[in-house]
Amino acid sequence: MDPIAELITSYFELNGSSIDELDDGGTEPSPLEFMRYVARNTPFVVRRGAASWPALKTWSVPFLRDALAEHVVNVAVTPNGYADAPTAGPDGKVVFAKPWEEDQAFPEFLDYVVQQEKGQLDASAETRYAQTQNDNLRHEYASVFSHVHRDIPFARIALQRSPEAINLWIGNSHSVTAMHRDNYENIYVQVLGQKHFVLLPPLCQPCVNEQPLQQYNYARAGESFGLVPETPEADDQGQIADDDNTVPFAVWDPDVPTESKTEYSALAEPMCVTLDPGDMLYLPAMCITIRIR
Amino acid sequence: MDPIAELITSYFELNGSSIDELDDGGTEPSPLEFMRYVARNTPFVVRRGAASWPALKTWSVPFLRDALAEHVVNVAVTPNGYADAPTAGPDGKVVFAKPWEEDQAFPEFLDYVVQQEKGQLDASAETRYAQTQNDNLRHEYASVFSHVHRDIPFARIALQRSPEAINLWIGNSHSVTAMHRDNYENIYVQVLGQKHFVLLPPLCQPCVNEQPLQQYNYARAGESFGLVPETPEADDQGQIADDDNTVPFAVWDPDVPTESKTEYSALAEPMCVTLDPGDMLYLPAMCITIRIR
Repeated sequence: MDPIAELITSYFELNGSSIDELDDGGTEPSPLEFMRYVARNTPFVVRRGAASWPALKTWSVPFLRDALAEHVVNVAVTPNGYADAPTAGPDGKVVFAKPWEEDQAFPEFLDYVVQQEKGQLDASAETRYAQTQNDNLRHEYASVFSHVHRDIPFARIALQRSPEAINLWIGNSHSVTAMHRDNYENIYVQVLGQKHFVLLPPLCQPCVNEQPLQQYNYARAGESFGLVPETPEADDQGQIADDDNTVPFAVWDPDVPTESKTEYSALAEPMCVTLDPGDMLYLPAMCITIRIR
Repeated sequence: MDPIAELITSYFELNGSSIDELDDGGTEPSPLEFMRYVARNTPFVVRRGAASWPALKTWSVPFLRDALAEHVVNVAVTPNGYADAPTAGPDGKVVFAKPWEEDQAFPEFLDYVVQQEKGQLDASAETRYAQTQNDNLRHEYASVFSHVHRDIPFARIALQRSPEAINLWIGNSHSVTAMHRDNYENIYVQVLGQKHFVLLPPLCQPCVNEQPLQQYNYARAGESFGLVPETPEADDQGQIADDDNTVPFAVWDPDVPTESKTEYSALAEPMCVTLDPGDMLYLPAMCITIRIR
């Protein structure tokens, strides 16, 4: 048997494909218990782990609209909810499509997201998602930061560092995050609504069919969107690099498992979990995260 | 740049190639501190970490000869000190050479090892090494087991398990262990003499040039040794498999770095450490261990 196939197969035989759920009473792990998961690159959920955070009581659509009434937010806009995702490009070839970004008044943005979720917009309406990862909860959204814990003690003590970034993301069920992985440890807390995660362990990398994709940007064109090739940035000397402008990205989609597959794709056993308000999820660094909706 | 080369290069840029030494006062890490090393697959040394173990005071050549006077030990014998190592085979091709194993009276074995170390034997004398890994310190050597600690508390608590095996190895500086890796966490304690370790992080696997090697056994032939192909074992039905009888093994040797290399070998930065009596070394699972002497 192919050693890579053997590795992936025995991983799932040994570990299963369900995500550990810690004690239902909202008890966080100790730093040592957390570090055991970090060592094994294994996610876990603490159901109701953040139930005592003030935001779980105070945050609501009216509260946030009011608290951030004067705010302008950076919004990622796509025609279909797929931002930073493999997409059929202008000539039919799969490209990497980045969202159109624009600043919107926070109350209008929030109302749009809610209306779309309630089915009050056309099926063809664009998808909007406030998804910046620039430590926004300690900056743009600072006025509501006091409603969440400043850090996660078990993670701070175990990893011996404070959070590099604390981000608030606001979207609806039309937003889908494509398969990707991040090079840092992440604790995700659900405050309002639900989020569905599908995860693969890092050793499933051979299953995901990473390909170099040309980078394109969505651009508003009247009522619809066009895809335009990303312009390479000029360097210090004003020179534009003659690079191929591609980014390596996974093109296999476990929802359509027989397409764009590798010889290993069928061995992957995606681990699924749905978070409700107050639930906390540890997303290990380099864990492959797919189809966050 | 080749992504594998980039990964290896940036690993050493970030982590250096020296092995962490914990506090010189013999202070063991806490379970959490240990788990941080486990999570990063990173070795560390605790100088004098086992200095308080009774064995550090009681064990000596006369003591062991006396305590194990009636014992018979399994001894690995090679003409050159290289057991379980890539070796030029009968037809000049590199093969995997396993030692000749024989039972010897413990006192005679110990005297041989000491005499050879003192230079009292011919340069061509065979090398003997008691290297069984069958939990021997809790079995054959049980009469001296009470002189060491029953387990390593920081590792037992962190990993939530007692040691699977506790082994005592006895040899001299003629024994060399070839590059290999083990699929379990290991705490090594030096009691007498010195041992030199050279380690590579797991991501250096592409540097070591793993090749399928035919398995051979050394066999005593009068005053010298022959290499004979290993006979495949018969299965339950008495059938002998028509297997190719090879084992995958690293053939690159960092002491002769320009031979048997891969395109990545030159990027490896071996981490060296010498243990003195009382020193403790954490050898992470899958860490590549080379040239233990």
